[in-house]
Amino acid sequence: MKRKWLGRGAVLVALVLLIVGVTAGAAFAGTDPAPVFKTPKVAVGDVAVSLNLLWIIIGAVLVIFMQAGFALVETGFCRAKNAAHVFSMNFMIFGLALVGFFLVGYAFMFGGYSFQNLFGLDKAVGDNLVGSGNWVFLWKGGFALTHLGGIGKNAALGAPTAAFFLYMYAFMDTTATIPTGSMAERWKWKSFMLWAIFCGAIYFPLFGAWTWGGGWLAKLGDSMHLGFGYVDFAGSGVVHAMGGVAGLAGILVLGARRGKYGPDGRPRTLAAHNIPMALLGTFILLFGWFGFNAASTLGATDVRFAMVATNTAISAGFGAVGGMLWAYRRMGKPDPGMMANGMLAGLVAITAPCAFVQPWAAAVIGFIAGIIVVVSILFLEKRGIDDPVGATSVHGTCGIWGVLSIGLFASGDYGAGWNLTTSGPAAKANGVTGLFYSWDLGIRQLGAQTIGALTIIFVMGGVAYAFFKIMDALMKGGIRTAPEVEDMGLDRPEMGVLGYADFVTSELVLAGEDPAEDKVLAHAESPDPSIGR
Amino acid sequence: MKRKWLGRGAVLVALVLLIVGVTAGAAFAGTDPAPVFKTPKVAVGDVAVSLNLLWIIIGAVLVIFMQAGFALVETGFCRAKNAAHVFSMNFMIFGLALVGFFLVGYAFMFGGYSFQNLFGLDKAVGDNLVGSGNWVFLWKGGFALTHLGGIGKNAALGAPTAAFFLYMYAFMDTTATIPTGSMAERWKWKSFMLWAIFCGAIYFPLFGAWTWGGGWLAKLGDSMHLGFGYVDFAGSGVVHAMGGVAGLAGILVLGARRGKYGPDGRPRTLAAHNIPMALLGTFILLFGWFGFNAASTLGATDVRFAMVATNTAISAGFGAVGGMLWAYRRMGKPDPGMMANGMLAGLVAITAPCAFVQPWAAAVIGFIAGIIVVVSILFLEKRGIDDPVGATSVHGTCGIWGVLSIGLFASGDYGAGWNLTTSGPAAKANGVTGLFYSWDLGIRQLGAQTIGALTIIFVMGGVAYAFFKIMDALMKGGIRTAPEVEDMGLDRPEMGVLGYADFVTSELVLAGEDPAEDKVLAHAESPDPSIGR
Amino acid sequence: MKRKWLGRGAVLVALVLLIVGVTAGAAFAGTDPAPVFKTPKVAVGDVAVSLNLLWIIIGAVLVIFMQAGFALVETGFCRAKNAAHVFSMNFMIFGLALVGFFLVGYAFMFGGYSFQNLFGLDKAVGDNLVGSGNWVFLWKGGFALTHLGGIGKNAALGAPTAAFFLYMYAFMDTTATIPTGSMAERWKWKSFMLWAIFCGAIYFPLFGAWTWGGGWLAKLGDSMHLGFGYVDFAGSGVVHAMGGVAGLAGILVLGARRGKYGPDGRPRTLAAHNIPMALLGTFILLFGWFGFNAASTLGATDVRFAMVATNTAISAGFGAVGGMLWAYRRMGKPDPGMMANGMLAGLVAITAPCAFVQPWAAAVIGFIAGIIVVVSILFLEKRGIDDPVGATSVHGTCGIWGVLSIGLFASGDYGAGWNLTTSGPAAKANGVTGLFYSWDLGIRQLGAQTIGALTIIFVMGGVAYAFFKIMDALMKGGIRTAPEVEDMGLDRPEMGVLGYADFVTSELVLAGEDPAEDKVLAHAESPDPSIGR
Repeated sequence: MKRKWLGRGAVLVALVLLIVGVTAGAAFAGTDPAPVFKTPKVAVGDVAVSLNLLWIIIGAVLVIFMQAGFALVETGFCRAKNAAHVFSMNFMIFGLALVGFFLVGYAFMFGGYSFQNLFGLDKAVGDNLVGSGNWVFLWKGGFALTHLGGIGKNAALGAPTAAFFLYMYAFMDTTATIPTGSMAERWKWKSFMLWAIFCGAIYFPLFGAWTWGGGWLAKLGDSMHLGFGYVDFAGSGVVHAMGGVAGLAGILVLGARRGKYGPDGRPRTLAAHNIPMALLGTFILLFGWFGFNAASTLGATDVRFAMVATNTAISAGFGAVGGMLWAYRRMGKPDPGMMANGMLAGLVAITAPCAFVQPWAAAVIGFIAGIIVVVSILFLEKRGIDDPVGATSVHGTCGIWGVLSIGLFASGDYGAGWNLTTSGPAAKANGVTGLFYSWDLGIRQLGAQTIGALTIIFVMGGVAYAFFKIMDALMKGGIRTAPEVEDMGLDRPEMGVLGYADFVTSELVLAGEDPAEDKVLAHAESPDPSIGR
Repeated sequence: MKRKWLGRGAVLVALVLLIVGVTAGAAFAGTDPAPVFKTPKVAVGDVAVSLNLLWIIIGAVLVIFMQAGFALVETGFCRAKNAAHVFSMNFMIFGLALVGFFLVGYAFMFGGYSFQNLFGLDKAVGDNLVGSGNWVFLWKGGFALTHLGGIGKNAALGAPTAAFFLYMYAFMDTTATIPTGSMAERWKWKSFMLWAIFCGAIYFPLFGAWTWGGGWLAKLGDSMHLGFGYVDFAGSGVVHAMGGVAGLAGILVLGARRGKYGPDGRPRTLAAHNIPMALLGTFILLFGWFGFNAASTLGATDVRFAMVATNTAISAGFGAVGGMLWAYRRMGKPDPGMMANGMLAGLVAITAPCAFVQPWAAAVIGFIAGIIVVVSILFLEKRGIDDPVGATSVHGTCGIWGVLSIGLFASGDYGAGWNLTTSGPAAKANGVTGLFYSWDLGIRQLGAQTIGALTIIFVMGGVAYAFFKIMDALMKGGIRTAPEVEDMGLDRPEMGVLGYADFVTSELVLAGEDPAEDKVLAHAESPDPSIGR
Repeated sequence: MKRKWLGRGAVLVALVLLIVGVTAGAAFAGTDPAPVFKTPKVAVGDVAVSLNLLWIIIGAVLVIFMQAGFALVETGFCRAKNAAHVFSMNFMIFGLALVGFFLVGYAFMFGGYSFQNLFGLDKAVGDNLVGSGNWVFLWKGGFALTHLGGIGKNAALGAPTAAFFLYMYAFMDTTATIPTGSMAERWKWKSFMLWAIFCGAIYFPLFGAWTWGGGWLAKLGDSMHLGFGYVDFAGSGVVHAMGGVAGLAGILVLGARRGKYGPDGRPRTLAAHNIPMALLGTFILLFGWFGFNAASTLGATDVRFAMVATNTAISAGFGAVGGMLWAYRRMGKPDPGMMANGMLAGLVAITAPCAFVQPWAAAVIGFIAGIIVVVSILFLEKRGIDDPVGATSVHGTCGIWGVLSIGLFASGDYGAGWNLTTSGPAAKANGVTGLFYSWDLGIRQLGAQTIGALTIIFVMGGVAYAFFKIMDALMKGGIRTAPEVEDMGLDRPEMGVLGYADFVTSELVLAGEDPAEDKVLAHAESPDPSIGR
């Protein structure tokens, strides 16, 4: 039969080639003058705008792809019985948070703020809503993107706002998805949905308006002569620490997973169910992070993006090495989970300073972050904070470290006029400068960074805690799933399907350094049908 | 031993740093004048062409990566016992369909059509083969890319054709891979191979020449004053509905999978074996779709690509929300499969109108698509159409919805002169316009869209049905695998390997809303060696 | 409860829309003059440099993402019991090899070599360390990127070096990761770590300096009139064959895996544990390869990148078809592993010639590579060379084929002045030319390619063999894991975790063409705790 088929294949190929021959022959028989190269007529300024917009869009697309990375990392670090639930949260955040950000969030955050000379728009599309001058708290304008300025003959005007919206949406999505890791394996779907909309509509835009939107934190340089005000190039604070403190707030409301702490109160390792999945997710995050950081120049005509990309890679690499070596030292093995968290820690930490530091500093910042993250994870675990994926440490702790590191390592080579700062000592500086390069500029910058960090931890952390606490009180049965649902796994009761319907699964608890004490908690060929509805 | 190793590591690092020190010292000891920044001399038109070609290539690469997304979605939604077979089809389509498209397909589709002022070519490399004027049916020229015009000193001339070929190849691949989902778990590998070549050589180029190739459907505006003729920005119809109807034709020839319908004729849920895999695939498709839609401006100097990207994201998000909410309502759970299909539905639907509508319309189109896809899946399932992954509904039904939506929502801001239309009322319009913006222009445009949709369903659907039917009659034993092969799983008999050799698998049938009725159909630690050879 | 929740959701949506309404109304009530489109003032040369740097960075990011592809391919082709170990090696190579390349490797390779007129730098940042003129062996300058030239007001000067560093780092990483496949399932973690640093600091930069760094192999055209000297556009030799011979050297030191060869000495198939994972990895490699090859023009203003991308896709497709058909012929089934290796073979082979050949030649080179790789895998397996993933054949054998193919197929249309060649017959040629286009130029070019290939195999292969052999002698217990660790799987003993903690796994040996002889070697629900510490 094999040979018969090969014969038929040969006939088909012969037939195709016959068609080629005949038609190609016909085509080339006549005189067919070759085309001539002719370039379009276009102004150099327009090409520059096109190039900048393209970089923003590519950056946005890379950041959006990070959602897949988050989904894989979080799901891989959790247990098989919750795989569909954890992944689905990371999936639906895309749509649910978009609804909130599209309808109102973007307008609150950027409605009255513009980036001149980059995309082609000469002014903002909206105005301030709460506050004014150096003390703006919220903007308005461009709700549901209805006021793009891109109608009729001026359709091209819509492009800059559309591009910037998409890029900012992608950042918001990252903040929104971080708590799905911290709160995984015990969080009700319905409660998750409300968080997603809340984060897109209010939580992220609030702090966003204060910083990237030119609000009161950004203007601390002008208003209080604190360096260039709060500086956060791509969001160690605005995006990551914001997500980290929200996740921590959620953990405080939810409590630890059943079985995480033994009767003696000591933490157990509820084993990650899929290491390749978690590491693949980390690679996808690394990949997308280049869009996150390097495209935050908001245009390719600012060639600093190349230095940003390189600093990002260096910090990621040194972070992974730092995390692995520290895990080796503390746990006796080069733990893959700590490699992944070490790389992510390096990425989170370099996100704020990536444009302002030299490569050697990126290596140092990343290496320290890789160590910090392991220390933080073990510390929080001991204190009863049960974060299944370490998101609080990766995004929260290392996000704060990234924010502060600007005040130490910024080399003063880049960022003149940052945050449109026009008064104070920074107004004459060549770039954002940290303590290691200048005492006077550095201490002021470090002050602004510290105010930003404290605002994230206490103000925004408080907002998130209040949100979860109120929801827990109002929602029937609270925001945590029932104990029997948690034991069975959330997949069938919450999502209606199993993550891995065809695989026989067990549930393993690793016993720290001693494999002889590992034990299988449960074993399932098909789901227990008696619970969860 | 640990400490010993750490000691050795320290020695190594010290050694490396020594080398650094010595050589770096040597390097910087001498006078080493720093380099100076010097930009190349280049004409602005050439930079614009370079930028446009770069966008096309990046777009093509993103679309090619969508193959991985299709493979994951389809495999994840099928059962573990067919994983290697389903994934391999999505893998080999890349090579097999390329052979057909490279040798003849591209020449049939675009041999005589060119896009001036974008890439630098002033005219097409070929001529028409069947038809002429406003009624061209097939082109010729550029078979096996032998006539690029890029030889010798004019090598740069080859770049535009090469770039456009790659981009169009990637679209063709999408059409070709859609039926592998609809026909999965019961389709013979040999039959699949012939489809792949046929689709690349004939099926896709045929409708492609009629639309994007400037053929008779594209010229309905000039020939019959139907708006701008058939308009389909990135291929809701040309790519997706084309794939959807081919898949439907295949299902009609193959019949339903064994066990899909109970003795009472009611459909059962043959459970998706890997939800994380399917959702990861959906994210990859989302990621690649930005290349699919936004790069369809065929150049970054047309900044409309930014609006296209944003509309794409909005429709995807609202589609996912629509699909989830409708599934919640109908099935009682936020089904992950319906989330994924909802997002894909939003993406498919916005593909045709993405450049012509405002963001609010993108939200509406996507949301409706998310509902339509759930309705369509449940409807077809009840009618005995067994589509394991819902591809017919996602790409077919929602593709048609996308094509028609242009006739409703197009805002008239973009697309002046589309399809090189020079006569009829559209010739003076500012852009493609739908019924909600202008009655006269809209009804004509809707007419052209309807003719295109009907052509896809009846003409191209007929071509696909005939192809599968004839192949089924000619091939020994038909195009469907033997029942015992289907029960065992296609992996070992068809591909020679198991998808998951080391995992113990079972086979689960979900009982709708009642988990108490779930049952395990089969259980395997190693394959049954007695069948399939 | 469902309806209650839907009610609450409705309330929330109503609330949100209320906010929208009120604030949007407020925003648009006042006079709000729309913004005006205003493009930045920028010189065309600066836009060109920005565009070129952007292409380099995007290329680097794509190549970095290939790490995920390698990890998936290698892990998928190995057994479940080693999944965490194999994936972790591919993960940590990123950080470990970066340390070596960042501190010294880049300076050795490129410290004294520059690419003028592309990025804006007019000269190199360093000087030669060993050798001079046409016979340079190593460079110096830019250790730890401390001498970027990008300080203070001239910060933009840092961008070109940073971008080029990142791109070259990504290539180095590919070379470094290839042996992790060849040596998988029996290689100690500690030994792996030293290799990673060694490859980044010395192994890759050495041959890199000789070729892409303008060293003695690159100057064979000027020094010995051998065409344009050793030509290797994107690294079939510099990257892939280099990795392939290192992997082969490692195999020779390690020996075959336990159980690979039966008592009769005949090879057994230790089944790949996850086909979808391996094929997904191949797709990711394909995706990243467009950055690997097409961005090797080092700038988008050289539009040849479009032809490069298209040739890459064509060769990949024909390679997959070639591999599948040859496997069908030899093994009776369209083996998915051979499809994947066929595509990778096509990609590896086209990497060197991709810019210099016509599309038809890309098809031929790829198709031949697809066949070669199957022949090579089966040949080596029979000779006792146990390469679990076929990396030696894919990267080694097909890398050499790619290097040599330039001497045959290069069409003479591109590459005038390559390697800054100024003397010999090539100095007047229109481009790199192979034997099929010119006897005189071709035989000289083929000579240079052959010298390069022999240098890789014997000189660099010797360096790698010596490195592994010395390490094996010095390290306590050698570089191979203990037999009981190998039987149990390396995950728990070496990494401290299991790859798939929650899945019940077995271990399957496929019996060639006869499934009746397949047998399960081991079965595990939880790890055997008695060994490996």
